[in-house]
Amino acid sequence: MTELTHFNEQGRAKMVDVSGKSETFRTAIAKSSIRVNEQIHSQISEGTTKKGDVFAVAQVAAVMAAKQTSTIIPMCHPLPLTGINVHFEWLIAPEDDHFEIAITTEVKTKGLTGVEMEALTAASVAALTVYDMCKAAGKDMVIGPTYLQSKTGGKNGDYERTDN
Amino acid sequence: MTELTHFNEQGRAKMVDVSGKSETFRTAIAKSSIRVNEQIHSQISEGTTKKGDVFAVAQVAAVMAAKQTSTIIPMCHPLPLTGINVHFEWLIAPEDDHFEIAITTEVKTKGLTGVEMEALTAASVAALTVYDMCKAAGKDMVIGPTYLQSKTGGKNGDYERTDN
Amino acid sequence: MTELTHFNEQGRAKMVDVSGKSETFRTAIAKSSIRVNEQIHSQISEGTTKKGDVFAVAQVAAVMAAKQTSTIIPMCHPLPLTGINVHFEWLIAPEDDHFEIAITTEVKTKGLTGVEMEALTAASVAALTVYDMCKAAGKDMVIGPTYLQSKTGGKNGDYERTDN
Amino acid sequence: MTELTHFNEQGRAKMVDVSGKSETFRTAIAKSSIRVNEQIHSQISEGTTKKGDVFAVAQVAAVMAAKQTSTIIPMCHPLPLTGINVHFEWLIAPEDDHFEIAITTEVKTKGLTGVEMEALTAASVAALTVYDMCKAAGKDMVIGPTYLQSKTGGKNGDYERTDN
Amino acid sequence: MTELTHFNEQGRAKMVDVSGKSETFRTAIAKSSIRVNEQIHSQISEGTTKKGDVFAVAQVAAVMAAKQTSTIIPMCHPLPLTGINVHFEWLIAPEDDHFEIAITTEVKTKGLTGVEMEALTAASVAALTVYDMCKAAGKDMVIGPTYLQSKTGGKNGDYERTDN
Amino acid sequence: MTELTHFNEQGRAKMVDVSGKSETFRTAIAKSSIRVNEQIHSQISEGTTKKGDVFAVAQVAAVMAAKQTSTIIPMCHPLPLTGINVHFEWLIAPEDDHFEIAITTEVKTKGLTGVEMEALTAASVAALTVYDMCKAAGKDMVIGPTYLQSKTGGKNGDYERTDN
Repeated sequence: MTELTHFNEQGRAKMVDVSGKSETFRTAIAKSSIRVNEQIHSQISEGTTKKGDVFAVAQVAAVMAAKQTSTIIPMCHPLPLTGINVHFEWLIAPEDDHFEIAITTEVKTKGLTGVEMEALTAASVAALTVYDMCKAAGKDMVIGPTYLQSKTGGKNGDYERTDN
Repeated sequence: MTELTHFNEQGRAKMVDVSGKSETFRTAIAKSSIRVNEQIHSQISEGTTKKGDVFAVAQVAAVMAAKQTSTIIPMCHPLPLTGINVHFEWLIAPEDDHFEIAITTEVKTKGLTGVEMEALTAASVAALTVYDMCKAAGKDMVIGPTYLQSKTGGKNGDYERTDN
Repeated sequence: MTELTHFNEQGRAKMVDVSGKSETFRTAIAKSSIRVNEQIHSQISEGTTKKGDVFAVAQVAAVMAAKQTSTIIPMCHPLPLTGINVHFEWLIAPEDDHFEIAITTEVKTKGLTGVEMEALTAASVAALTVYDMCKAAGKDMVIGPTYLQSKTGGKNGDYERTDN
Repeated sequence: MTELTHFNEQGRAKMVDVSGKSETFRTAIAKSSIRVNEQIHSQISEGTTKKGDVFAVAQVAAVMAAKQTSTIIPMCHPLPLTGINVHFEWLIAPEDDHFEIAITTEVKTKGLTGVEMEALTAASVAALTVYDMCKAAGKDMVIGPTYLQSKTGGKNGDYERTDN
Repeated sequence: MTELTHFNEQGRAKMVDVSGKSETFRTAIAKSSIRVNEQIHSQISEGTTKKGDVFAVAQVAAVMAAKQTSTIIPMCHPLPLTGINVHFEWLIAPEDDHFEIAITTEVKTKGLTGVEMEALTAASVAALTVYDMCKAAGKDMVIGPTYLQSKTGGKNGDYERTDN
Repeated sequence: MTELTHFNEQGRAKMVDVSGKSETFRTAIAKSSIRVNEQIHSQISEGTTKKGDVFAVAQVAAVMAAKQTSTIIPMCHPLPLTGINVHFEWLIAPEDDHFEIAITTEVKTKGLTGVEMEALTAASVAALTVYDMCKAAGKDMVIGPTYLQSKTGGKNGDYERTDN
């Protein structure tokens, strides 16, 4: 039997080897947002959304998603997270019909790789959960932009986003 | 023993009862995007990203996330998806240093509730996966806006987004 | 080659065949409870537990666990749940140092098998989540009894528990 | 655009930061139980339950649930468990129509937080699995009380329950 | 901004659309096997493997894996399984130093697509679980061949493997 | 109440205690294979399989399965994997109608137990995914043999398979 064809090495997906890295304390902060309409703003503020307290549910969803990041993002390394925090803030300008929820997530670990993906995944899932809980009152909501605000730890040093 | 306090009914989180709804054929299309830098554009196009073929991995991640939506989004109903499609397209204008990947997801089911969340979750996870696979070459990537483009099926009728 | 030994048929674990059953509308109500100390009662009521709003998190946990029942309980059939509700109520008698949270869960589906396990799993996970969020203020909490209160649907008819 | 409203800090759900804790060897022992009727006692003892060997399946379910605790209990930290043991014992007094299965689970880790929730979750899932496998022969089974028997390790020292 | 590059349509991964298929009763039977050494044969038969009763654990693992197939195999459709059965049989010829466990799995559903992958996944996981529980006594075990024995249901008709 | 019956200690399933082991760098290499027919060989090579690029999807599936091993294999310890690689190679002899894909997986960690199961699970899932993506063109594919090729690390020393 002859070996005729090698699969092209280029483009092979793999979880890159981090065995040689050293364990350091790491943090990451990500941001997302979701724009809603005035009715949804009222429903969330007054607690009358039919699926329940929107921020409370979105926080839990974000925390649980952060812990599941390595099962959602294929090439992401599993990490034992040591802390997760999720924050919501209203940015509203009723005269401009602007009702926006700013989402900030912060994730911490002591591990071989960073927690950027965990923070970004948590922020995305927080926004998606808000969408789910409010969509009966309008499907025009827009999520994002979603981005990494900062990170610390690891041999490549710290990162702080300079503009949006 | 006396029952003194009732928990406030308002704000209770629940998965709303859809038992009375009827099973119809439903589709949803969602869109997201991710802006990358020129180096990342080259790496993706040339297949030299160190984690592998970016679009191939992101497609798989998106499909798997769509199927996991009801375990990621707390109040989302489980649905037996019948089809999932994920599409990437480059929107580039090198003279403006603009390198953007447009992501479109389409999800189908025959069920009691719509698949908006499945399409939105798939689009978000596709973008997050691109971020993960390319972040060694720059952490300034920006994900989104992410939004629902259209849906069909269900008693509330079809939806088509009119503007971005 | 000779076939010498048959594995004992008796005791084989299997997910029993329900292909012949017909799809009916089904509900189940389960109950659990957790006894806490006075300090925990105060912390929950005043929202000062260091992990967050206890009932809000426990409700989300219960809803998500209900949807995961067939992945937690090995021989349980997967079912597309159509509704999940979780209710908390304080039963307190300070003079007897009695501070108890009564938990009621209700689950609905239209399917081939009943949702008793989904309701019981949700109630158990609600109680476990309360324990987790309050354990810094006392590990003596006691969960249960946990039991099925009632069910409807299915060829064996309805069930209503007659005593506790 | 003006920032008008801050989300109430109080009651925010978070996975508390344990980055500062030190890794120690930790154990926890939890207990639960399930009362069954005489017919179920016979079926389990004689291995004639239609879903299979009850204790064998419940042990596996408990071990797997212990490993999944941080995905079931929202604010629970992920921990790399190093050992899990599940034990069943019959407590019967036929003259009083009392047929009870006492469940004991023991979980070990070397980590930043304790394994109380893992032991309690395993014990609860063991009991729920027994319920599932036997419910065709009677739905009056009662689970619990479920509680922490003891723990070792961690800066707050050991705990041993003094009464039930 | 100009759209310059289309991602190559060819090779796009997708979960193919089965919305047009009709729901039929479907079954699939898969087979696998694992060859072990004499010591492992004795340990399994005598129940002295240090991780526990090998076949009991492998059966549970196989049933649970069947239910998780669509989360393990990326392009596989989710299906509400209605029955799962796992069977082990010893094929031994001590004079030839041959100790083999033949594994047969049978899966049933009423759905839009077949359950071949569920049966094959269950058989593979059963074999892997045997490997895990016995590997302390020898790592030379060989799994497979693993293949589909038969299927029924669906518009393409029945299938019966004609040779091994 | 009298305690009458002890559950038989023998055969109890448990996740064995590895608390006393020390953390070492560990690797494992596993192999599997899948025989396909000529048409499937052509479809994979030409990228015309209707579900997408077969090897790309199978690689992602294998990496994700490796990370999920301790949730699939019941008594397997959870481990923070540090690297996963999946390799495909065609072994073909058209004159003998032989078209075979050789699958090699390599997994790395720094942990208390070995990664044999992770490598074997990844190899099995890679093969199953190939089966799933190609089965529309023939269900006679045969998976395996699947076996451990080598391992390093741990107090029992290295292992290298001497024959197939």
